[in-house]
Amino acid sequence: MKKLIKNGTVVTATDKYEADVLIENGKITAIGKNLSENVEEVIDAKGNYLFPGGVDPHTHLEMPFGGTVTSDDFETGTIAAAFGGTTTIIDFCLTNKGEPLKNSIQTWHEKSKNKAVIDYGFHLMIGEVNENVLNEIPQIIEEEGITSFKVFMAYKNVFQADDETLFRTLLTAKEHGALVMVHAENGDVIDYLVNKALKDGNTDPIYHALTRPPEVEGEATGRAAQLAGLADSQLYVVHVSCANAVEKIAEARQKGYKVWGETCPQYLVLDQSYLEKPNFEGAKYVWSPPLREKWNQEVLWNALKSGQLQTLGSDQCSFNFKGQKELGREDFSKIPNGGPIIEDRFSLFFSEGVKKGRITINQFVDIVSTRTAKLFGLFPKKGTIAVGSDADIVIFDPNKERVLSAETHHMNVDYSAFEGMKITGEPISVLSRGEFVIRESQFVGKPGTGHYLKRKRFGSETKASEEVYQ
Amino acid sequence: MKKLIKNGTVVTATDKYEADVLIENGKITAIGKNLSENVEEVIDAKGNYLFPGGVDPHTHLEMPFGGTVTSDDFETGTIAAAFGGTTTIIDFCLTNKGEPLKNSIQTWHEKSKNKAVIDYGFHLMIGEVNENVLNEIPQIIEEEGITSFKVFMAYKNVFQADDETLFRTLLTAKEHGALVMVHAENGDVIDYLVNKALKDGNTDPIYHALTRPPEVEGEATGRAAQLAGLADSQLYVVHVSCANAVEKIAEARQKGYKVWGETCPQYLVLDQSYLEKPNFEGAKYVWSPPLREKWNQEVLWNALKSGQLQTLGSDQCSFNFKGQKELGREDFSKIPNGGPIIEDRFSLFFSEGVKKGRITINQFVDIVSTRTAKLFGLFPKKGTIAVGSDADIVIFDPNKERVLSAETHHMNVDYSAFEGMKITGEPISVLSRGEFVIRESQFVGKPGTGHYLKRKRFGSETKASEEVYQ
Amino acid sequence: MKKLIKNGTVVTATDKYEADVLIENGKITAIGKNLSENVEEVIDAKGNYLFPGGVDPHTHLEMPFGGTVTSDDFETGTIAAAFGGTTTIIDFCLTNKGEPLKNSIQTWHEKSKNKAVIDYGFHLMIGEVNENVLNEIPQIIEEEGITSFKVFMAYKNVFQADDETLFRTLLTAKEHGALVMVHAENGDVIDYLVNKALKDGNTDPIYHALTRPPEVEGEATGRAAQLAGLADSQLYVVHVSCANAVEKIAEARQKGYKVWGETCPQYLVLDQSYLEKPNFEGAKYVWSPPLREKWNQEVLWNALKSGQLQTLGSDQCSFNFKGQKELGREDFSKIPNGGPIIEDRFSLFFSEGVKKGRITINQFVDIVSTRTAKLFGLFPKKGTIAVGSDADIVIFDPNKERVLSAETHHMNVDYSAFEGMKITGEPISVLSRGEFVIRESQFVGKPGTGHYLKRKRFGSETKASEEVYQ
Amino acid sequence: MKKLIKNGTVVTATDKYEADVLIENGKITAIGKNLSENVEEVIDAKGNYLFPGGVDPHTHLEMPFGGTVTSDDFETGTIAAAFGGTTTIIDFCLTNKGEPLKNSIQTWHEKSKNKAVIDYGFHLMIGEVNENVLNEIPQIIEEEGITSFKVFMAYKNVFQADDETLFRTLLTAKEHGALVMVHAENGDVIDYLVNKALKDGNTDPIYHALTRPPEVEGEATGRAAQLAGLADSQLYVVHVSCANAVEKIAEARQKGYKVWGETCPQYLVLDQSYLEKPNFEGAKYVWSPPLREKWNQEVLWNALKSGQLQTLGSDQCSFNFKGQKELGREDFSKIPNGGPIIEDRFSLFFSEGVKKGRITINQFVDIVSTRTAKLFGLFPKKGTIAVGSDADIVIFDPNKERVLSAETHHMNVDYSAFEGMKITGEPISVLSRGEFVIRESQFVGKPGTGHYLKRKRFGSETKASEEVYQ
Repeated sequence: MKKLIKNGTVVTATDKYEADVLIENGKITAIGKNLSENVEEVIDAKGNYLFPGGVDPHTHLEMPFGGTVTSDDFETGTIAAAFGGTTTIIDFCLTNKGEPLKNSIQTWHEKSKNKAVIDYGFHLMIGEVNENVLNEIPQIIEEEGITSFKVFMAYKNVFQADDETLFRTLLTAKEHGALVMVHAENGDVIDYLVNKALKDGNTDPIYHALTRPPEVEGEATGRAAQLAGLADSQLYVVHVSCANAVEKIAEARQKGYKVWGETCPQYLVLDQSYLEKPNFEGAKYVWSPPLREKWNQEVLWNALKSGQLQTLGSDQCSFNFKGQKELGREDFSKIPNGGPIIEDRFSLFFSEGVKKGRITINQFVDIVSTRTAKLFGLFPKKGTIAVGSDADIVIFDPNKERVLSAETHHMNVDYSAFEGMKITGEPISVLSRGEFVIRESQFVGKPGTGHYLKRKRFGSETKASEEVYQ
Repeated sequence: MKKLIKNGTVVTATDKYEADVLIENGKITAIGKNLSENVEEVIDAKGNYLFPGGVDPHTHLEMPFGGTVTSDDFETGTIAAAFGGTTTIIDFCLTNKGEPLKNSIQTWHEKSKNKAVIDYGFHLMIGEVNENVLNEIPQIIEEEGITSFKVFMAYKNVFQADDETLFRTLLTAKEHGALVMVHAENGDVIDYLVNKALKDGNTDPIYHALTRPPEVEGEATGRAAQLAGLADSQLYVVHVSCANAVEKIAEARQKGYKVWGETCPQYLVLDQSYLEKPNFEGAKYVWSPPLREKWNQEVLWNALKSGQLQTLGSDQCSFNFKGQKELGREDFSKIPNGGPIIEDRFSLFFSEGVKKGRITINQFVDIVSTRTAKLFGLFPKKGTIAVGSDADIVIFDPNKERVLSAETHHMNVDYSAFEGMKITGEPISVLSRGEFVIRESQFVGKPGTGHYLKRKRFGSETKASEEVYQ
Repeated sequence: MKKLIKNGTVVTATDKYEADVLIENGKITAIGKNLSENVEEVIDAKGNYLFPGGVDPHTHLEMPFGGTVTSDDFETGTIAAAFGGTTTIIDFCLTNKGEPLKNSIQTWHEKSKNKAVIDYGFHLMIGEVNENVLNEIPQIIEEEGITSFKVFMAYKNVFQADDETLFRTLLTAKEHGALVMVHAENGDVIDYLVNKALKDGNTDPIYHALTRPPEVEGEATGRAAQLAGLADSQLYVVHVSCANAVEKIAEARQKGYKVWGETCPQYLVLDQSYLEKPNFEGAKYVWSPPLREKWNQEVLWNALKSGQLQTLGSDQCSFNFKGQKELGREDFSKIPNGGPIIEDRFSLFFSEGVKKGRITINQFVDIVSTRTAKLFGLFPKKGTIAVGSDADIVIFDPNKERVLSAETHHMNVDYSAFEGMKITGEPISVLSRGEFVIRESQFVGKPGTGHYLKRKRFGSETKASEEVYQ
Repeated sequence: MKKLIKNGTVVTATDKYEADVLIENGKITAIGKNLSENVEEVIDAKGNYLFPGGVDPHTHLEMPFGGTVTSDDFETGTIAAAFGGTTTIIDFCLTNKGEPLKNSIQTWHEKSKNKAVIDYGFHLMIGEVNENVLNEIPQIIEEEGITSFKVFMAYKNVFQADDETLFRTLLTAKEHGALVMVHAENGDVIDYLVNKALKDGNTDPIYHALTRPPEVEGEATGRAAQLAGLADSQLYVVHVSCANAVEKIAEARQKGYKVWGETCPQYLVLDQSYLEKPNFEGAKYVWSPPLREKWNQEVLWNALKSGQLQTLGSDQCSFNFKGQKELGREDFSKIPNGGPIIEDRFSLFFSEGVKKGRITINQFVDIVSTRTAKLFGLFPKKGTIAVGSDADIVIFDPNKERVLSAETHHMNVDYSAFEGMKITGEPISVLSRGEFVIRESQFVGKPGTGHYLKRKRFGSETKASEEVYQ
């Protein structure tokens, strides 16, 4: 089965050129001028970019949280992702202390089975480190191809792990070739501030932000980076939201520590003032870390531009305003944290980043796709348009103007965090392993066609060779 | 005329995959699996890498300096470059105060005419800024395609410009779309220290290093970066040698300033102790800035790895030990500054960088070729292996072991700065615009085939578009 | 009862001049040229300095630790302190979780009753923060005059408190006018490293240092400083040993945070290599934080000189080599932490600091006495030679050369950490509230004459007035 | 001749206590409780502070500038200083290139002869370094007791010296025991920006600030500090106005460089918006460096509090609005730089600093008097209230409320930069060497009674002794 995409402009993290792209059996097999193969199908991409499909390193689909469950599952979530130009996601598999890690992985396999329309992998949460966990980790890496582990420094008495757990996870990751991810906020301080606010009768959504000040993110980020440096291991800081945290990452990298940082679209375009919207609307904008004062946006953009931050995650974690966000009407701490972004991550970043001249188009591809694939053991299968890679391709019209809205989005949630925002650029058609999932802005895929991805180990094993991408 | 390179492993700043590469009329027209075109010639590259040809941003061929002239001209120099895997150089055109800039450019065209075996461009030195200079600059950018200007902060009473000249050059560069390069050392302090050393009878080569301490490089680098920030212009710091300078560049980039830094192979593998070699041999290791204490090497490698430094120049500036370096036997300040590196830059960096696991193979390509092409307006014509780009390709055997030596090198100079050093990897064959210059380790090119390159403006003009690569 | 000290050179944190000092009823009542009062006693101090008595902010007398008790109690310890020129100490009162704080204070009052020969106060350890503790703290400040509280970030499962405890202690201290002290090392990481070392059979004293690397001190120091900044409270970091921690304190102070740092003589003159002494002698040099690589000494001296560190504590915590340090012969983690310094702090600092030109003589007085009195609510009663202040005076011969040794020291311990070290300067006579404790190098005091000191609140309450000294 | 000041509260940089102060022959001879000497005069200071007289390190009296002369000479200027609580000034002696330095000193002696009512010394400007200058410097230090030399990095083609001059001055100062002062602004950049602004028709006073942005001060400050570090010499940065410069000084001090910084009252309480006052009134607020954005004030206060800045100069440089400031009506660059502050420095700093709780009362004395005396070789003769010191004493009512105004000030100038500002605290009486200059707010001194002060060398010569105060 062969397909030929003609006349598009191929863009990778390095290149940009006009060429035809030949696809055979789901893989890219040739790129060239005027390729005239004997193919079953020819797609005309004139005037459009051909981007590698987005790789979203940070989603929470059908995830239980605070007594409710995120409203997008692996079906609605991956359909929305595909509409948005994302062809790979890595979802967070939560674990329970005292239980085998494998049980949780099994649960996540069940959640995703026969649902996903694009390929997906799992990160695994580490809540404690003991002999059982240390025994399971190498097996999980080997058998499940899960090569990234997440430690929470916040959510006291729920997910929060202590520094010993973080340090030992870093050492284990180094030994076996995995990447450690942290949610970096000081949960102890937050816990106190939240209780204090509630005790003082401060229950509105804005107190979500005021009880998680940027200092607690900066502190935890610095702490994690220092432990990573001491362990000589690798660290990935998720959802960096503010200058305080960026500084710590930059400082660590300057010392030669292997530390990377991810930010999210919401931190680049929204700010703390949204939490003050009347009629409890602020609840729509409750993320952790919270939205920050507006000046942080420029710091984040510059960090992406200059290479201090490397990736963009959606932190997709959707809850309906009605019935879910509303759980916190009387108490901001009961508002489920998170929002719907999986669909908008790619286009919004193109519009605000490339169209507004903040980053180059190659940096766009690197940040939204390639670097994530490299860091998480998916490259070169995912993350690029190159001979031999999966034909995960976005045919993107860079000039299409449109307005983001809950009325038109495909996520299973009753509001958009970017309602009314005008952006430029749209994924017209999206292919996953050579098959259309989105075609001319219509969903044409099928739940269950997405594959589970066993990922490669982090490069530490093969450090001196030419097979390392990080 | 078509050529097909089969079975090689294509490596770009992003990708690495096995594919055949089709070349037509000097350009790459297709990359794919099992391309079976009707071609005049098939080259088997099995087991080898296909790298984009190296782009060397920093050479001084046939350059007058201190009463002598560098021993490699555009013929010997570019032949040596080609042997070393470099297919593009940008040479520094020196100017004289009070004379039209165009005169100097004319001189440089004459030097290079009918000599180069690979493509080349010119940077232009700015020694003063006045009405004449301000009038000439836009013409030169337009007509000559010279889009980078160099200001010296050292060499008092010779090349040194004052801060007003630097600042105005930055402003002019911003206006017209050019990149300002600086030699960043505080020439005033050096001048005093050199005179003091000589007065005290300290004439040995080691005093070259001791009279140009890292502080003077750090200071000048920081000063240039601050002026660039104030001017909101773009700055490229050549030959960064030490931690002091790296820190200033990192600090500037963290503030969002458009500042880039280049280091050179000699600073990565040699150190200040070489200047103390007996029998005046230290003179072979006289560069400005000087070689530094060994611990700086790790700082430089890390800066390349983490993105604080972006490019690698050779600073090729060869002088024979006999008759040239010897001019300074009685007075270190008369030793011509510089050394022969143009041939070794590429392979040495591969061996020490990739083979020793300090950088990834994609970073290697980025640093040794792609980024330079992007910063200096040559991309995507140069700097990548992509459809539509010039077929400047290095067929590289990554496992060939060899020893660097003046006996085997092709530079027109009587010593090697890396004599006896064992490295791994060799450019077996090298093509410039589709034609072999080196074939199976033999020179098969012809002087004069290299083209002069008019370069594009620095991206500032087109900031908001998708055509910017910096 | 009047005494007149004639002909000495009075030195304070600001001044240095020759004058006579008149003492009445234990207080200084006049300072002048040729005072010729009708006095009971005239002391000739010609050629000597008159320093305010040293104030040692950090002692552990008769303190239980790891199954043993420090060998100096309030009698031997304060006699040794007096010999060394110290006339005030503040000892750490340890508390037990779940018990009223007052019980511990009562224990400490009993330990010290009828023993001390100089005045003394207590700091109070805070191991947890709950309603009981929050209720007790204001009473303790009011009734006991204890206005400094210590939180341990290390000694997991023993003294270590979590970040919430530290943060709440900071908030409470701010509210009630107290200073929070931290032992800043990351106990979680240390705990893991110690267990790992022992499991690997690494039991020698040097592993004490290797399992508490400077990174864990730097991390914890930075964390504490950031929490202090967020709480807008005041923080005092005890026993700063290394560059990593100094940097964090300097950074915090530059941001305007109210953070101070104390170092100790051992970190200024000893280094990590001492832990490698043969025959288990390294155990004599086991402190927490551990001795560091020698280059840190210069960083600490500079921090004192430039004002980044402000005080010098002895961290007196003596254990005999025989029978006590020996508990760790088979396991470095069982070596009691600490050493005998209370007697040498003052003179050693004078000799290495003033005599070697590292600090001025006024800085000496400030660091060894005045600043501590100011920070801990004892000024101007203690910490200076001024009209109205307690006549705690050291008559100091700045030129006396001597050798430190266990044979001659007065601490109740069988070794000296500075055995054989030559220093210049000796406290010849020492007065506490006008009475000789040491006279012509002989002890002439009486156990029990030392008073317990109720201390003033930290200045925050009276911020806008002229009564604040910090 | 004896005087006794009774019942005041003596305040030094360290102490604060109630005591009587005895003065004999212009010197303090005793301080004590209830001194009952046989004295000619008893002064009651009940309820008042006794401060050491202010030492102002930075004045320009009767100084030619831009075709005019500062309106206060050594008579009016020192009378105003005395009214304001200052009893010592160090004035800047300007020199001319090519002329013997001694000529300029002679001129300054003539300016001041029979005029000053308080004691005074001179700093000497160094505009070039050549053999003549190098020969003169040691003589001037020896004979004139001038131990501080100022280098201008700004005022291109007028005062500006190049980096070699600065570096050599630093080396010479180190050798002979002097302190180098810098006006740190990048004059090259300023010169360009000023010309550009004028060419663009931007002639209003606000352009004075806009053409001297904080970056040019930060850059020059960092440059000077790095040269001082390299020279291992001592540096004093005058009139620090902004965060950019503070950071550089802090960074240098953290590295152990001997660098100190002075700020001025105007930078602590005024800001850039004053330059925009209508009707050319902005000209009253033209200083170099210019007033900055308001947020810098907090940075400066914190730097004084935490010890990153050490002194406060007035930079007294008064020009009448009528006839002098007006020279720049059509061209901001012709507005004479500077303003009248000598009288308000002391009280304004007390009111804004101590009364508002930003600094302690001891820090006030240190910054406004003691530290300057120490740095500039006047201590302990000046700068403290101690036995043996000159009886330069301010009797200060800390609670007197008053309003600053040109109508009531004593400077010879037609406006006040602080017109209408309410402050608390007033020097009621001021003694210079035991004689009243101001008594009960009336001038009772006599022109010519002020002595010229030969100052001691900077402490470097006597580094290891106990005679160093810096």
